[in-house]
Amino acid sequence: MSDSLVPETRVLAVASQVVYGHVGNSMATYAMQSLGCDVAALNTVHFSNHTGYRQFKGTRATAQEITDLYQGLCQSNLTDFDVMLSGYAPSAAAVEAVGDIGMDLKKKKADKPGSFFWVLDPVMGDQGRLYVNDDVVPAYKEIIKQADLILPNQFEAEVLSGIKITSLATLAQAITAIHRIYSVPHVIITSVQLSKLSQSGGTPTPPENFLTVIGSTTKSDGSPRLFRIDVPALDCFFSGTGDMFAALTVARLREAVSETGDDLQSTASWVSPDSVSATDLPLAQATLKVLSSMHSVLERTMEARNAEIAKAALEPNQNEGLSAEEQQKQEYLRLTKAAEVRLVRNARFLRDPIVQFKAQEWHKEDLPADLQ
Amino acid sequence: MSDSLVPETRVLAVASQVVYGHVGNSMATYAMQSLGCDVAALNTVHFSNHTGYRQFKGTRATAQEITDLYQGLCQSNLTDFDVMLSGYAPSAAAVEAVGDIGMDLKKKKADKPGSFFWVLDPVMGDQGRLYVNDDVVPAYKEIIKQADLILPNQFEAEVLSGIKITSLATLAQAITAIHRIYSVPHVIITSVQLSKLSQSGGTPTPPENFLTVIGSTTKSDGSPRLFRIDVPALDCFFSGTGDMFAALTVARLREAVSETGDDLQSTASWVSPDSVSATDLPLAQATLKVLSSMHSVLERTMEARNAEIAKAALEPNQNEGLSAEEQQKQEYLRLTKAAEVRLVRNARFLRDPIVQFKAQEWHKEDLPADLQ
Repeated sequence: MSDSLVPETRVLAVASQVVYGHVGNSMATYAMQSLGCDVAALNTVHFSNHTGYRQFKGTRATAQEITDLYQGLCQSNLTDFDVMLSGYAPSAAAVEAVGDIGMDLKKKKADKPGSFFWVLDPVMGDQGRLYVNDDVVPAYKEIIKQADLILPNQFEAEVLSGIKITSLATLAQAITAIHRIYSVPHVIITSVQLSKLSQSGGTPTPPENFLTVIGSTTKSDGSPRLFRIDVPALDCFFSGTGDMFAALTVARLREAVSETGDDLQSTASWVSPDSVSATDLPLAQATLKVLSSMHSVLERTMEARNAEIAKAALEPNQNEGLSAEEQQKQEYLRLTKAAEVRLVRNARFLRDPIVQFKAQEWHKEDLPADLQ
Repeated sequence: MSDSLVPETRVLAVASQVVYGHVGNSMATYAMQSLGCDVAALNTVHFSNHTGYRQFKGTRATAQEITDLYQGLCQSNLTDFDVMLSGYAPSAAAVEAVGDIGMDLKKKKADKPGSFFWVLDPVMGDQGRLYVNDDVVPAYKEIIKQADLILPNQFEAEVLSGIKITSLATLAQAITAIHRIYSVPHVIITSVQLSKLSQSGGTPTPPENFLTVIGSTTKSDGSPRLFRIDVPALDCFFSGTGDMFAALTVARLREAVSETGDDLQSTASWVSPDSVSATDLPLAQATLKVLSSMHSVLERTMEARNAEIAKAALEPNQNEGLSAEEQQKQEYLRLTKAAEVRLVRNARFLRDPIVQFKAQEWHKEDLPADLQ
């Protein structure tokens, strides 16, 4: 069996669904399945395409519809999930409904520590801007307290911690605050551009065209164990990469936890003993594989995108006769489509990542004084 | 690249979706993706689980919602599909909406014969019983005229042809009638129990525990080219096998067509030249691989199901204290869940089928006089 599958894992994935392309559950479902996870997809919206196209059609599920689907699972005893992955929910009430599902699943497994794990992607905004209603923020702040791992981006980490991230020290403070305020044992901040933060201490800053992923698992005293992984950024914006990251992290974390000699799988929230260093954490090991898979898939996506654009440039202009505005719109749609992640044909990179990055522990000098 | 992928294929899959388990698009999407197809899933219902559980929660898409999602694709030029696979639609109006989508996609590709192919599963009923509203039947009879391949079961073939299938001769007549009435070039009747039909002619009938799949591609004069494949039936009912069959057939037919030396890919409806014998048809070659994959997956599903049932028998009875009726219900739910197809962990059998069956041409004596 050369199938490169992770241990058997039943996942309830609660996120958006699009007909065309790969974001939300339309990304996460296949990403997890390709590694062998059995995925139950509970879709919170049904859209024709991702919103990056600036136009779409479809419907949003109400909080009641989300709750009903879950009640449907409960009444037929179809709730034997090892992991829940929750992503975008279209309203504060929907976030609360998702929270109730997470709490109910947790309660059902309360007598077996480690038998249920909740990965929560607090989808609220990016680049300094909320793209959900204001009332979604307090809804997330409430439900995060029940999650085991959260995956905010830099902006969402600021919103959750109340700390503006301007330096490595404030980044560490934000993660520490998130651990403390929400009692959430694992945090990964996906994509921080370190070169944009003010310099401090001894940590070498990667060049501008690198992104850094920062993760931490708490120690028994609640303090963070911080690791970072630098990856070269690709010169293109892809939609759905956050969902790909979350999905692969579910599968790889489950795998890494099963591979430790300890009894980590039956430990609440899969928190490693204090003796495990930051870079040896299952979270760090999982993230390395995830980022390696993603880098390979996105590199190939960019190649395919560039080839598609080059080919189109040789073809007769189909937009002639349209207004300048309409031509621009058609061009934008074409470029957006060209950047859809080439997921399915590159599944081998999901299954067999070529690990090419390294997790690093933070230098003490980069931590705020109270964490040194 | 030992990826066993079929040629690049973009599929629009229009069918039902369930959170838990594998039927409709929740079966077809992954089955096609695992072979390398890029699948756009347009979901016609959103249910918690398949209806075989006898209880479920969720919502049905209206015809307008289905149309809207497709319009969303159109407005952003996201309609570059090579194949459409359409399955369950929850009303006559929804069937018509799906038909309009198929016709529109066909029209868009009208200048390039063979560049669009529509596989239609006319989901209406089984075992002599309709499970859709009566008005769904005429809706299907109308849209089938636009399809390239249809996949009725024995009962649906009777409904479509108006011919009661009681013998090999009437079976051949039904297929011939379907070709003729609907001008549909490819037909597969999924699962006929030949041993239950009255005997005739020289074709050896397989033993009782075999199912037979009958397929045909028309010749240029509209007459059928009939092949049959006998497969051992497994002693268990699995939901979603029709959807698995349809999905794998999309991928394998595309592959088989690309492998012919002819220019079949650019021939309208991929209809082979008259010189190609029934058993050499791409449809026959594709069906062999599909049935081999399915047999391996279902065998493993049955093993897993039996192990699950045996394990449960050793555990304390959790239903003690419940009424007899409630105990029976819980037991039924448990058995239904145990029979969910083990799809994801057996993907290797989808990718690399071990072909163990043979396609046979029909003996002339088994054909009605006008087809001999």
